[in-house]
Amino acid sequence: MKFIIQRDQLIAGVQDVMKAISSRTVIPILTGLKIEAKQHGITLTGSDSDISIESYIPAEENEIVNVEQIEEGSIVLQAKYFPDIVRKLPEKTVEIESDDNLKVTIRSGKAEFNLNGQDADEYPLLPKIQTEDSFEMPIDLLKSMIKQTVFAVSTMETRPILTGVSVKLEDNLLTFVATDSHRLASREVPISNANTEFKNIVVPGKSLNELNKILDDTEEQVEISVTNNQILFRTKHLNFLSRLLDGNYPETSRLIPEQSKTKIQVKTKELLNTIDRASLLAKEERNNVVKLATQGNNQIEITSNSPEIGNVEEEMSIQSIDGEDLKISFSSKYMIDALKAIEYDEVTIDFTGAMRPFIIRPLDDTSILQLILPVRTY
Amino acid sequence: MKFIIQRDQLIAGVQDVMKAISSRTVIPILTGLKIEAKQHGITLTGSDSDISIESYIPAEENEIVNVEQIEEGSIVLQAKYFPDIVRKLPEKTVEIESDDNLKVTIRSGKAEFNLNGQDADEYPLLPKIQTEDSFEMPIDLLKSMIKQTVFAVSTMETRPILTGVSVKLEDNLLTFVATDSHRLASREVPISNANTEFKNIVVPGKSLNELNKILDDTEEQVEISVTNNQILFRTKHLNFLSRLLDGNYPETSRLIPEQSKTKIQVKTKELLNTIDRASLLAKEERNNVVKLATQGNNQIEITSNSPEIGNVEEEMSIQSIDGEDLKISFSSKYMIDALKAIEYDEVTIDFTGAMRPFIIRPLDDTSILQLILPVRTY
Repeated sequence: MKFIIQRDQLIAGVQDVMKAISSRTVIPILTGLKIEAKQHGITLTGSDSDISIESYIPAEENEIVNVEQIEEGSIVLQAKYFPDIVRKLPEKTVEIESDDNLKVTIRSGKAEFNLNGQDADEYPLLPKIQTEDSFEMPIDLLKSMIKQTVFAVSTMETRPILTGVSVKLEDNLLTFVATDSHRLASREVPISNANTEFKNIVVPGKSLNELNKILDDTEEQVEISVTNNQILFRTKHLNFLSRLLDGNYPETSRLIPEQSKTKIQVKTKELLNTIDRASLLAKEERNNVVKLATQGNNQIEITSNSPEIGNVEEEMSIQSIDGEDLKISFSSKYMIDALKAIEYDEVTIDFTGAMRPFIIRPLDDTSILQLILPVRTY
Repeated sequence: MKFIIQRDQLIAGVQDVMKAISSRTVIPILTGLKIEAKQHGITLTGSDSDISIESYIPAEENEIVNVEQIEEGSIVLQAKYFPDIVRKLPEKTVEIESDDNLKVTIRSGKAEFNLNGQDADEYPLLPKIQTEDSFEMPIDLLKSMIKQTVFAVSTMETRPILTGVSVKLEDNLLTFVATDSHRLASREVPISNANTEFKNIVVPGKSLNELNKILDDTEEQVEISVTNNQILFRTKHLNFLSRLLDGNYPETSRLIPEQSKTKIQVKTKELLNTIDRASLLAKEERNNVVKLATQGNNQIEITSNSPEIGNVEEEMSIQSIDGEDLKISFSSKYMIDALKAIEYDEVTIDFTGAMRPFIIRPLDDTSILQLILPVRTY
C-alpha cells in the first residue's frame, strides 16, 4: 500500500474515527486504526465494537486532488501514536507506505517515521446494513433532536435499557424519548419520503453523544437505516454504525399527565438563571433541591435553604399564572438540563399538584416535551 | 459592615484572592475569604498560610465610583460558595451587609442570599513587611523571568530547597536560578535604583506560578521587598505575599562548563518542532530520550528509536556547526521546555562532549541560560 495525501484531510478523517477507538477494548486489534487505500480514495476505520466509524477521503473531489500515487492495500496502525504523528508532520502532504512485512513508513518533508503495523485481514469486518430501507433528514435537525433528549438517559447500569434513547419512526413521525425514571425528554419530527418504519429501537446514549460531536452543524442530509441490532448514520464521507440495546423500552406515554391544575408561562433564560442561582447553595446538603411557589397572578418565588450554609430567595415576574396556587420542590439540575434543551425564548410549565410530574414545553410547540418528577418536601 | 459595589470589580478581586485559598488547609478559617470595608475602599484577603493575597478595590478611582454607602466592618465568608454567587448575580451592582450575629446578606436585583459568616477577628494577621527596603521592575519583565526559570524547579520533595527558585539581587543585578539537578534555568536582569540587596532567598515555585497567573502582562511596575522569611510583590491594587523556603540553595555556578567543544546555531522553532516529532514515539519505553548527531558543517540528525513501536529520524539544516563531531542523547522534554522558555528566534547550543552538560542560549544574549544534562546511551 502506498499513497500521498493532503495532511489536513488526513487529520480530519483520523480525528473522526478516533472517536470510536478505545484503549480499553478486549479485542487488541481494535486499539488500532485501519487504513484502506483504493484507486478512488482512502477509507479510515475505527471501532470499539459498540460504535464503528468509517471516514472516506476521495482521491479527487470538486476537481481538487486529495490523494495521489495510490497503490492499493490496507494496514492497521496503533491509534495511540498515529494521530499525534500526523498532526505534527512538517509539510502539507504526507506519504504513507507499507511493505509485505507490515512495516509502515510515514514521510513528510525530511521527517520519516517507521512504525510496526498489523495485518488488516485480522481487523473485524463491519456488519453490512441494507441501506434501501432508510430515511433522510437534515444533519442539524438530527443534532438538535439528540441534544434535546440524550441528557435525560440513565447513567446507572441497573436498568441498562434506560441508558439508551428510544427511537421510533411511525406514520412519518420520528420520535426520540429518553428517561432515567426521574425525568423524561422527548422530541418529535415529521419525516417525509421515508422508505421504512420501525419501533422498539433503543440507541445507546453514548453513541448519540459521539455522533453529535462528529457531525458538523449543516443542513446537509444524513441517511439513517436500521436492522435488527444496528443503526447506520451515513453522510457524504462518513459511516457511523452503532449497535442497538437489547430489551424492551418501557411504555412512557402513561407517565405524562393529561390534565393541568396550574399553568405558568415564563421566559426561559430568566427562569434558568434564577434556578441556577438558587441551586448554588443546594449542591451538597440538599441534593440540588429548590422550591418554586406561585405568588398571585404573575410572580413566582424560587428559594433554597441549606441550614449549614445559608439560604437564597428570589422573586421573579413571569408572563402568566393560570389555575391553583402551587408550592413544589424539584431538582434544580433536572430543571436546568430541561430548560437548556429547549431552544425557545418562552416556555409553559403545566403542574398537576406538588406530588405529580410536571411538564415543560416551548410556547406554542408540542414537538418538544420535558417532564420532571418533583421531590417531596412540602 | 455594609457596602454596594460594582459586580465586575468584585468578581475580579475575588478571582485574584481565590488563587491563595485552598479547601485543604489545616486552619479552618483559611477556607474562607476575608472582606474588610473601610471608607476608602474594600480589601479582600485569601491565604493558605504559604501564599497570602490581598486585593484592594478603592471606593473611587479616576472619578469612577466602585463602592458606595460604605459602613465600615469586616467578615469572613466561605470561599466555596461566594465566587459562584457573585459571578451569577443578576445585576451590575451588589449590596453586601453583615450584622452582629455574623449573618451576611448579599442582594442584587431581586435575588437575596443569606449566608453564615465567620468572625474576621479570628482570621490570622498577615506579616507586615518593611517596604522601604525594596526595588521596582516592570511586571512583564518579572513574568518573563518567572516563565524562563520556574519550569525547571524540582517536583520531588526529597530535596525541598530545589522546589523553589533561587533569587538574588547583588550589584544591581537580579538573578533567578532553578534546577532539579538534571537541568538548570537561569535569567539575569539589571535593576537600577534598588534600595536593597539580598541573596540566599528561595521562593517556592508554586508561589511564582500563582503570581505569574495573577499578574497582567503590563509594563506597570511591581515593587518587591524581602524579609527573613517572606517576599512581598506589590502592585497598584494587589499585595502578593509568599513565605520563603528554609535552607541553603546549592552553589550552581560550578555546574556550568566553561569551555565548549561543539557549538551549533539553530532556529529555535524549527529545532523545537523536530524534537517534538522525534519524542512522539519515545514517550513510554524510552523515557523521552532522543538523539542528536552532527552531520558535516550545517546539518544535524534527530532520531529516536522505540523497538516495540518504531523509530523516527529527521535531518535538519541549521545555521552553523563549529568544533568536533558530536553524538548526544538527552530528554526531549527538557529540551522542549528549555527551547520554549527562550523567547528568541535563534539559539546557540554549546556542547562539551556526550557526557557533559550542554548549554542553550539565545543568540547574542547571555542573560538567559538553559543547561541540560545528557543521558548516557552512546
